[in-house]
Amino acid sequence: MDPIQRAVEEIRSLKVQGARNVARRAIRAIRELVSSRPSDMERAVHRAVEQLALARPTEPAMRDALTFVLRSLVEARGQEDPYAYLISRLDAYERELEEMVRRIAEYGARRIPDGGTVITHCHSSELMAVFRRAREEGKEFTVIVTETRPRYQGKITARELVEMGVKVIYVVDSAAYYFMRDVDVYMTGADAITSDGYVVNKIGTALIALAANRFNVPYYVAASTLKFDPVTMAGFSEPIEERDPHEVIDPAEIPGADVRNPAFDATPPELVDGIITEMGIYHPQALAAVMVSEKQVDERLEEAISLIRLLEGKNA
Amino acid sequence: MDPIQRAVEEIRSLKVQGARNVARRAIRAIRELVSSRPSDMERAVHRAVEQLALARPTEPAMRDALTFVLRSLVEARGQEDPYAYLISRLDAYERELEEMVRRIAEYGARRIPDGGTVITHCHSSELMAVFRRAREEGKEFTVIVTETRPRYQGKITARELVEMGVKVIYVVDSAAYYFMRDVDVYMTGADAITSDGYVVNKIGTALIALAANRFNVPYYVAASTLKFDPVTMAGFSEPIEERDPHEVIDPAEIPGADVRNPAFDATPPELVDGIITEMGIYHPQALAAVMVSEKQVDERLEEAISLIRLLEGKNA
Amino acid sequence: MDPIQRAVEEIRSLKVQGARNVARRAIRAIRELVSSRPSDMERAVHRAVEQLALARPTEPAMRDALTFVLRSLVEARGQEDPYAYLISRLDAYERELEEMVRRIAEYGARRIPDGGTVITHCHSSELMAVFRRAREEGKEFTVIVTETRPRYQGKITARELVEMGVKVIYVVDSAAYYFMRDVDVYMTGADAITSDGYVVNKIGTALIALAANRFNVPYYVAASTLKFDPVTMAGFSEPIEERDPHEVIDPAEIPGADVRNPAFDATPPELVDGIITEMGIYHPQALAAVMVSEKQVDERLEEAISLIRLLEGKNA
Amino acid sequence: MDPIQRAVEEIRSLKVQGARNVARRAIRAIRELVSSRPSDMERAVHRAVEQLALARPTEPAMRDALTFVLRSLVEARGQEDPYAYLISRLDAYERELEEMVRRIAEYGARRIPDGGTVITHCHSSELMAVFRRAREEGKEFTVIVTETRPRYQGKITARELVEMGVKVIYVVDSAAYYFMRDVDVYMTGADAITSDGYVVNKIGTALIALAANRFNVPYYVAASTLKFDPVTMAGFSEPIEERDPHEVIDPAEIPGADVRNPAFDATPPELVDGIITEMGIYHPQALAAVMVSEKQVDERLEEAISLIRLLEGKNA
Amino acid sequence: MDPIQRAVEEIRSLKVQGARNVARRAIRAIRELVSSRPSDMERAVHRAVEQLALARPTEPAMRDALTFVLRSLVEARGQEDPYAYLISRLDAYERELEEMVRRIAEYGARRIPDGGTVITHCHSSELMAVFRRAREEGKEFTVIVTETRPRYQGKITARELVEMGVKVIYVVDSAAYYFMRDVDVYMTGADAITSDGYVVNKIGTALIALAANRFNVPYYVAASTLKFDPVTMAGFSEPIEERDPHEVIDPAEIPGADVRNPAFDATPPELVDGIITEMGIYHPQALAAVMVSEKQVDERLEEAISLIRLLEGKNA
Amino acid sequence: MDPIQRAVEEIRSLKVQGARNVARRAIRAIRELVSSRPSDMERAVHRAVEQLALARPTEPAMRDALTFVLRSLVEARGQEDPYAYLISRLDAYERELEEMVRRIAEYGARRIPDGGTVITHCHSSELMAVFRRAREEGKEFTVIVTETRPRYQGKITARELVEMGVKVIYVVDSAAYYFMRDVDVYMTGADAITSDGYVVNKIGTALIALAANRFNVPYYVAASTLKFDPVTMAGFSEPIEERDPHEVIDPAEIPGADVRNPAFDATPPELVDGIITEMGIYHPQALAAVMVSEKQVDERLEEAISLIRLLEGKNA
Repeated sequence: MDPIQRAVEEIRSLKVQGARNVARRAIRAIRELVSSRPSDMERAVHRAVEQLALARPTEPAMRDALTFVLRSLVEARGQEDPYAYLISRLDAYERELEEMVRRIAEYGARRIPDGGTVITHCHSSELMAVFRRAREEGKEFTVIVTETRPRYQGKITARELVEMGVKVIYVVDSAAYYFMRDVDVYMTGADAITSDGYVVNKIGTALIALAANRFNVPYYVAASTLKFDPVTMAGFSEPIEERDPHEVIDPAEIPGADVRNPAFDATPPELVDGIITEMGIYHPQALAAVMVSEKQVDERLEEAISLIRLLEGKNA
Repeated sequence: MDPIQRAVEEIRSLKVQGARNVARRAIRAIRELVSSRPSDMERAVHRAVEQLALARPTEPAMRDALTFVLRSLVEARGQEDPYAYLISRLDAYERELEEMVRRIAEYGARRIPDGGTVITHCHSSELMAVFRRAREEGKEFTVIVTETRPRYQGKITARELVEMGVKVIYVVDSAAYYFMRDVDVYMTGADAITSDGYVVNKIGTALIALAANRFNVPYYVAASTLKFDPVTMAGFSEPIEERDPHEVIDPAEIPGADVRNPAFDATPPELVDGIITEMGIYHPQALAAVMVSEKQVDERLEEAISLIRLLEGKNA
Repeated sequence: MDPIQRAVEEIRSLKVQGARNVARRAIRAIRELVSSRPSDMERAVHRAVEQLALARPTEPAMRDALTFVLRSLVEARGQEDPYAYLISRLDAYERELEEMVRRIAEYGARRIPDGGTVITHCHSSELMAVFRRAREEGKEFTVIVTETRPRYQGKITARELVEMGVKVIYVVDSAAYYFMRDVDVYMTGADAITSDGYVVNKIGTALIALAANRFNVPYYVAASTLKFDPVTMAGFSEPIEERDPHEVIDPAEIPGADVRNPAFDATPPELVDGIITEMGIYHPQALAAVMVSEKQVDERLEEAISLIRLLEGKNA
Repeated sequence: MDPIQRAVEEIRSLKVQGARNVARRAIRAIRELVSSRPSDMERAVHRAVEQLALARPTEPAMRDALTFVLRSLVEARGQEDPYAYLISRLDAYERELEEMVRRIAEYGARRIPDGGTVITHCHSSELMAVFRRAREEGKEFTVIVTETRPRYQGKITARELVEMGVKVIYVVDSAAYYFMRDVDVYMTGADAITSDGYVVNKIGTALIALAANRFNVPYYVAASTLKFDPVTMAGFSEPIEERDPHEVIDPAEIPGADVRNPAFDATPPELVDGIITEMGIYHPQALAAVMVSEKQVDERLEEAISLIRLLEGKNA
Repeated sequence: MDPIQRAVEEIRSLKVQGARNVARRAIRAIRELVSSRPSDMERAVHRAVEQLALARPTEPAMRDALTFVLRSLVEARGQEDPYAYLISRLDAYERELEEMVRRIAEYGARRIPDGGTVITHCHSSELMAVFRRAREEGKEFTVIVTETRPRYQGKITARELVEMGVKVIYVVDSAAYYFMRDVDVYMTGADAITSDGYVVNKIGTALIALAANRFNVPYYVAASTLKFDPVTMAGFSEPIEERDPHEVIDPAEIPGADVRNPAFDATPPELVDGIITEMGIYHPQALAAVMVSEKQVDERLEEAISLIRLLEGKNA
Repeated sequence: MDPIQRAVEEIRSLKVQGARNVARRAIRAIRELVSSRPSDMERAVHRAVEQLALARPTEPAMRDALTFVLRSLVEARGQEDPYAYLISRLDAYERELEEMVRRIAEYGARRIPDGGTVITHCHSSELMAVFRRAREEGKEFTVIVTETRPRYQGKITARELVEMGVKVIYVVDSAAYYFMRDVDVYMTGADAITSDGYVVNKIGTALIALAANRFNVPYYVAASTLKFDPVTMAGFSEPIEERDPHEVIDPAEIPGADVRNPAFDATPPELVDGIITEMGIYHPQALAAVMVSEKQVDERLEEAISLIRLLEGKNA
């Protein structure tokens, strides 16, 4: 099986998870492809981009990685050794992915109250990096971890936190309101952030945000700017995947009922205090402005829309 | 085993559940006891009341039943056949318990929107009676049922609704926000209602009430006035039981974490539109006023407090 | 045409408007009927009640008047001269209707800020009595009157206020938000008040209540307790009449569009500060409790429900 | 100086403060007067009531005491020894005043969280009784006391609490928001409660209530039902006294500035969780309904309005 | 009549309406003037700008067009053929105006829910372009159109939508609350957007925004960045025009009343989810930041303030 | 004493107050140092920066001035006369400080409503410049000035306003809610603004902001962008100084009580309408985006963090 197909499979089967892991997996697959110096590099990379994009079409971080690949491919044209050039660009991108997490961890750790209590939902590698950094700085704190139905990602979060030496209180998702009076800060990761400031994350995130808001508990999201989805600037909605009902229950247990399993919800920006990105902490509504001023979103927007169009053609 | 001990056991082991069922079980046990015409009826009944009260000290409906027993016992003194008199009073009480549910079902069914969508949480016999009555009146409707972690009472609710011919959507508790835009009314039962209008019900109820409030979806609680806890008028708080963590997870799965399992939360009155009682529909903040004007709460209050004091002595 | 038919016609054609006027019209028609001393008085009155009830089935004040008639009819049975007895009861009822308005005017006038600004919507005879009383007490004030589309009842309100010597600002309904910063109190009448505290009044009332709430402007409703609809305690909803679209526009002006014309909306209780009734000023959520404690709502409830059932049979 | 004049002076000069103290002082003065067995008792008592009422016209508790006196005076007519009868009634009233505080203390103490933190404002004898009772029951707690500008009543509160063995944190009024995250409950007394549920209390109470609400901290008011002002049911507003600007600052320090010193503000009912009265804990919006059902407010209302009218005549 | 005078007249008489139409009309008039190759082009254009600016001083889009003209005039100085250069710039500007609408339509159409319901107020050419584009993409949807008193622009909106094949529900403005439960999105155009995020639009817009907010219905504004008024960054308020009272009613119908007719209101930013601009979708509070980073607002600000100063001199 | 030590002393003893004054004092001290042409200028300036930074470590404006000094020092290296170059840069910075205030005054004065009422808290030189400018433009207005416990800065504000000819109402801090209904705008200065939009200002600011919000009174903050604290982008919290309890009360007056005196609170961004900066008016959540796009915050951030690290080392 060629490197691209392997990556596509791993991404599609959820063997590779987490926005940044998926983006890195895609970058590495293309690096392997380019290292084999295919005769028509442009055509080969184009096809690879297309296949990878189709493997998880709603993942903004991977979309960012692939539009970066396409842009670098154009730059490579005039270079002496286009293969080497592209590989060096891919390596730089991967290093940047690491650096992002390092910065988020550094900034976010400062928001962990020493001796205080955090509540979190689901599992996020960016947020785990924040917790780890806070521990390395010697902070003591408690994290209330929700089990995160239907797939119990809270177990992973809880176990990793216990290993770090963090005090963990493990509860059902529904208990968030009950415990909120004693919480100092609510923190999660994010799957995507829209141009109007909605935070798309694991189902249940919005409900806990409502409870935090009621007790005036601040809510911070640890997420690299890769999670900002530029196509939402052009009006595209962040799609909410509905997953296999078996994750919730064997439907045979309640014959006749319609079991539904949406994977995410979208927390409105007025319930969020800040996004902790590698570029600093911003309110989600301001993030679009920052992206526009800092990162030539305009260009990337057009490319990303072209990519979506391409995919729509393939899917049709 | 004597009838009282049997009842105590069934109540303590949760074999008998639901506020009204527990109250009825207590009434029937005392009826059985009185039918055996014990020589010193007053003393026997007093001891029975004490044992039953200790079996589930925080259940206002049973407390109401037992204070009724004590009051009837006093009335019985002057009667020709005190045994027969007391039995007739107990039977009247039990008939009243049935009539309560009939009325709640009648009133509540009118709030079910024909062709509309209801969301509910946990399982409540009063609310099931409402749904059943609405079906009998020919209404078609959809109910979104949350699974209700940790004990999955949502399964029971879902199965009973499917049997009634109601369209059921079964989801994890965390999905309440996601589906709320399409909901017409949120309905639950209650475990207790306080004098300042808080609705104590299964953990998660308050979180869904916040979501309903955000979408301006009305929230009605189907609960007999037995659920009104008179001792809260005297400042007592409704205690929130913390149950066995094994209901949530085998703690060995996350060694070192503190698994906590509070059974209820208290929804503040401004999130509730009305309590559907057998005496009509009232806002929870007005219920105390109604109880005062209708049912000599003052007297019952003193008796209920005496009962609590008695129990505190026993528990100490 | 007999007196009942004449009254039915006037009520049905909206020649008689306003809850109290309709109730009085019905009482007077029955008085005229009874004065003619029909041979079978009970049967004649029963038929009259039925016809009048059908003329405006959703009017709680008339329903109250008619249940009063039915109750008095029963009382009349044992009397020496049942005709005279019934007439004296009807006269007492009509006097009580006058006294109600006098009290509401007295209490409400105290809430008009001297030198201040009131905003109102539509036209209410109770509220006009309040304004008149405040003028008689020498208060100077400004009233912002909304035109009240589609039937422009604001014109009537504005003209009557100018005649009283009140300073009037006349605006479109949509201008309520714009002017709200300078308003001291929002006041309207009501068509009905439900047991959970909703104020059913002319379409647009709820929108202005939202604006008042945003500026922390208190909202008082001048309405006799006749407007409290007891059947809402039993779960009945207050029906919202949809009227002839021609009141809005000649549909031929926009061929193909669906012109809709709901006459009322229901303002939620948390937007209302108080109902100014003849029995005092109460929060709408407390009104049901007051009615229960003061006026044997229980009895009236059963009768009112019977009346509704009767009407449903007739309409079917 | 006769006993009435002495009492009037003490009340007017603020030597006697606190709603209940003022009421008791008035009762005792009339008792002294009646003990002297004046020849025309009715006339003498009438004149005394008038003088006392004028000494502090806006105090609902004294108004309640004086309307009680007038009512008892009528009852005394038919008695064998009207002097003795009236004295026995006055003594009963005074005993009832003591019993009220005992009950409020008992009920309120149950709302003090053991090991928790309360915030309070100004000084209230009812609330101090609550704190004392909680201490007697062995509870440990912290009270954040605001200094309460301009007259620093917070100092008295702080000193009394320290003497009781309560941990006190003493802060400026403005610091209430800053400390609110760590507060479990906000508690104050009240000067008056209106029929629509507003709590009139020392200036600053409403501001702290807003902060408590933002952090979802419950707010309880310890106040006997004497603080419920029945004339507000008839639309009268609770007057807000503006006191001497010198309490704030010597105006000469800022020549040309207008120094203003309102003594109270009115906290809206949606910011209050409950009133702890001697009759139980109720939401402020429900209190009017309770008063109507329990205490013949209707009668007292008419008498109280007559008293106000009388005073208005005297003042004019 | 010369081309400038003609344009001034059309703009002043409201023959030309809509921000973009007015801007285009001004650009075309100046183009005609420049085409006539006046001997002192700079002076002629300066005078034209002044006259056009005075025709509608509060229109930010025209102000943007005229500051663009002044800037291009400076650039034209060094050019070989300054007339031709200026004309080419004017043509570019007009093309850009078209392109803006195309993009807004493209982005906004993605926010129209297929099979869903939109509510709108007044008439906006940008928003009509959005609806048209959504129809071209095959979407089916319903639009609730408010009549928009006093000038009934809702009729135009309704007719154009019916022609597009959109299902239209036509209602009075006051009905917005009543229908809001079934609405998926609220959409309007805008007359101006301020630097602190207020949306100035037809009177009534804010009231409907309050209702949308209560039901958690998102509110999107279709408006080019020309509607962003840079002088609000410097503290200028957006003036609210009060128009002829005869638009509301013939004042002779209510002699003595003061008929007032403000044309716009300002919706606060926390009620708005996003502005759909040609540069993407942003929260209104972030728009100022985007404008600063993208379009040299600083320069335009100074020029716009100079223009205002000039006009103030002229008007004085 | 050398110029740096003198400045350090003045800053530490609060002889120099106000963010801008402190920054200017630091700049002038360094100018004096550089004028003396020390042999190793870089080392001398480095040491001076360190000493000054330690004198008030939490003052973002001074931090900005000192990072500017460090940056200019690097630029000075290549210059012909590094001393003269650095002095010219320092003079330019000081001129910019003046220009900032001039612009804030100009923009802010436009938000003062002619004939209206402003409420303010504490004393801010930026805001006084706004008031002065509004007076110079001929505006008449009233300012409600809170005394600002514990240090009564309200007296200074009140006196300066009276001198300007502004009508002043002077009240205790707690009276803000009472007077809010008649207020048109709330305005303060700021000590610091965080990247997520919190306004750190004198204790009590947040409480008044809650009251303003409840009455929909807009809240504007007059503050140069120097008050934006770039290190909050990296997660640092704005520290809240606790000052000497003697400012509140002589602790001996309440022996046993813990007197606490936090100097600031942090008003959340949703309670603020705009920051009036020298670069225009922005919502506080958008300010970070503006700073990023306009002023190379990235670079300054790294330098500021280095400075903090340096200080932490010194303090440890």
